[in-house]
Amino acid sequence: MTLHEEMLAVGDGAVAASRELALLSERRKNAILEAMAAEVETRKNAILDANKKDIEAGRNAGLSTALLDRLLLTETRLVGVVKGIRMVGALRDPVGARISRWIRPNGLVIVKQRVPIGVIAILYESRPNVTADTSALCIKTSNAVILRGGKEALNSNAALAEALTAGGRKKGLPERAIQLIRCADHDVARELVQMEGRVDLVILRGGEALIRAVTDQARVPVIKHYKGVCHTYVDESAKIEMALAICENAKCQRPGVCNAMEKLLVHEKIAPAFLPPMAARFAERGVELRGDAAARAIAPGMKEATEQDWFEEYLDLILTVKIVPSIEAAIAHINRHGSRHSDAIVTESEAAERMFTRDVDSAAVYVNASTRFTDGGEFGMGAEIGISTDKLHARGPMALEELTTYKYVIHGNGQIRE
Amino acid sequence: MTLHEEMLAVGDGAVAASRELALLSERRKNAILEAMAAEVETRKNAILDANKKDIEAGRNAGLSTALLDRLLLTETRLVGVVKGIRMVGALRDPVGARISRWIRPNGLVIVKQRVPIGVIAILYESRPNVTADTSALCIKTSNAVILRGGKEALNSNAALAEALTAGGRKKGLPERAIQLIRCADHDVARELVQMEGRVDLVILRGGEALIRAVTDQARVPVIKHYKGVCHTYVDESAKIEMALAICENAKCQRPGVCNAMEKLLVHEKIAPAFLPPMAARFAERGVELRGDAAARAIAPGMKEATEQDWFEEYLDLILTVKIVPSIEAAIAHINRHGSRHSDAIVTESEAAERMFTRDVDSAAVYVNASTRFTDGGEFGMGAEIGISTDKLHARGPMALEELTTYKYVIHGNGQIRE
Repeated sequence: MTLHEEMLAVGDGAVAASRELALLSERRKNAILEAMAAEVETRKNAILDANKKDIEAGRNAGLSTALLDRLLLTETRLVGVVKGIRMVGALRDPVGARISRWIRPNGLVIVKQRVPIGVIAILYESRPNVTADTSALCIKTSNAVILRGGKEALNSNAALAEALTAGGRKKGLPERAIQLIRCADHDVARELVQMEGRVDLVILRGGEALIRAVTDQARVPVIKHYKGVCHTYVDESAKIEMALAICENAKCQRPGVCNAMEKLLVHEKIAPAFLPPMAARFAERGVELRGDAAARAIAPGMKEATEQDWFEEYLDLILTVKIVPSIEAAIAHINRHGSRHSDAIVTESEAAERMFTRDVDSAAVYVNASTRFTDGGEFGMGAEIGISTDKLHARGPMALEELTTYKYVIHGNGQIRE
Repeated sequence: MTLHEEMLAVGDGAVAASRELALLSERRKNAILEAMAAEVETRKNAILDANKKDIEAGRNAGLSTALLDRLLLTETRLVGVVKGIRMVGALRDPVGARISRWIRPNGLVIVKQRVPIGVIAILYESRPNVTADTSALCIKTSNAVILRGGKEALNSNAALAEALTAGGRKKGLPERAIQLIRCADHDVARELVQMEGRVDLVILRGGEALIRAVTDQARVPVIKHYKGVCHTYVDESAKIEMALAICENAKCQRPGVCNAMEKLLVHEKIAPAFLPPMAARFAERGVELRGDAAARAIAPGMKEATEQDWFEEYLDLILTVKIVPSIEAAIAHINRHGSRHSDAIVTESEAAERMFTRDVDSAAVYVNASTRFTDGGEFGMGAEIGISTDKLHARGPMALEELTTYKYVIHGNGQIRE
């Protein structure tokens, strides 16, 4: 079999599984999820052993400490994985829910109701917990899932997927409902995004290069978990203490994630009072600052920011700082340089807050809070499969509802159109 | 300027216009729509003259009578166009509506609210009324629109677009909010679907060939108004009189549209009683029947159906007929051969109706009604920009709500993440 034929067979298997999944009751799906969780517990040692192989190979291949940490599974982390699956089991199944219902003058009863999407493929890197989270969310919403993790995590992902499948099968998980692609060939990604009629949605969680390459070739709808170039704008009316705390948190609490602040915009009127203490706090936390000329004049010691800096997601203790003459300039800068992920204003002005929340074109727009809250768990969704930086179908954190679509079911008693 | 540069300029203009549109109040947008409608009335003669040129050129180019009819504008049809714009004005603006709102334990107030998509491009053929309908729907939802109609309708579309723009400008329609592409170059479509960052959504209403070609090249999200291979399944428990009336209506009332029935599936137990009178009715209406062996045995005089027939959208007085042994077989046939548009069951059995509406994977699934009702107007949406046969973002008739997306606006009082 060629890779193409193999992938078509994977797609056919997923389509068949999705039809079976659509027939399962919520109770049945919860029993499957519980069995999946239990089997991961049972196979704990085998999974940790597989992970050790990946870590060793990664170390030999010279992966960075950050990447190795993302790759690592420990007993504690595995407990978190199991807990995550059970948490999804406890969430309410959105499939079958009525979104709306109305009756037409001719007596037709129209119900708009949630249905599974069908077959979902996900391309992701490093963290093996995505394998379990994604599988649980897809099974709960009756979607078949095709998993394509990074090659550096293949042993861990394979051990996890085997446990999930073996556990689920005990309670009636359809064969091929969860399929992990083991083939390391680069063309797998291209095949997946071109499987119209077999794959209904591809979720992309990966590096910028992967996303660009795959998006260019896609014929299947794709939702991107793209970069997070998140801004905080400190308005002239901001409370300085609040602004200091929010900015420190947004930058430093976990700099390696997509909802961490990467850019700081400061109104010129508040900059002399705000920027020096802010720079001092960042210096304490080891943050490298890069500023425009105005910022460097107020808080010396910053490096010079280049044009490229405004577009870059560092995922590190680096921050670019700009002084702006107005809120309008801040908004224009964000819409031009940001990634439509999460952006915040710190302000005491209602007019400023209204303008900022209306005009900033991002998935999550904050007033007086840290951008770090853009997260399925923090939003109260219970879990997430990713954070969409696209505008269609789903925006921001994607959880169960975002893994469904809808159809119209129309009941009549013989209506015909005049 | 090369075509590429020209199209980028069109995109930049649309983005700028979309930002201005987002600031307009509903009242302002309604005034613009009224001025657009009034200007089409004022320029009635110029528009009809432009249309005459298209009709003449079309006749010389040998367009079919059906295509010429789609292309034709008359005084009456123009009254309909004007009425359509006013009707959109009277609909409720979904932009800014709260989809949901909740408060987190840490006090963050999360509001999920409807926002415009941004810039919408639409590729369509023939009917000039689409120019006005689409413009009205996009302006009402604060989206900038890029129109690319068929070259056979260019004079009509240009006259209409000029009227819409000139009228709207009197009441503050942003420059370049409505842009009609006049360049006939085939590459325009490719350019449009590759303008990431400038075009947020491309709606495809066109022939199968156009859709295939454009989808393959798309980097921007695309929603397809693809073909309608609609089925009616007559269950063994159907009332024969009701089934006869529904099938006749679904096939004959307007055979050239996407929600007309193209395939008839009949349960083998009811076929001997139902098919002969049905065939007689279709013969009276001039419908050509193509059947499988079992259907031809029951109602002689049908042509033989080929495998290709089951996938084909005739848009004509042709119907393919199949005898099925069970509802399961009917459902499997529809999911394999249909186009996920509209499919109906005629039945008196609650179990059959439950199974059919759950398992048929189409945008609209009917029980005891004609498939002809899949339409924004018939659904009570007031208008439509198309009927999505895709599963993501929007499914079935697309009207105002489907031209919006959402964002999360989060209010805090200094919350930081622990």
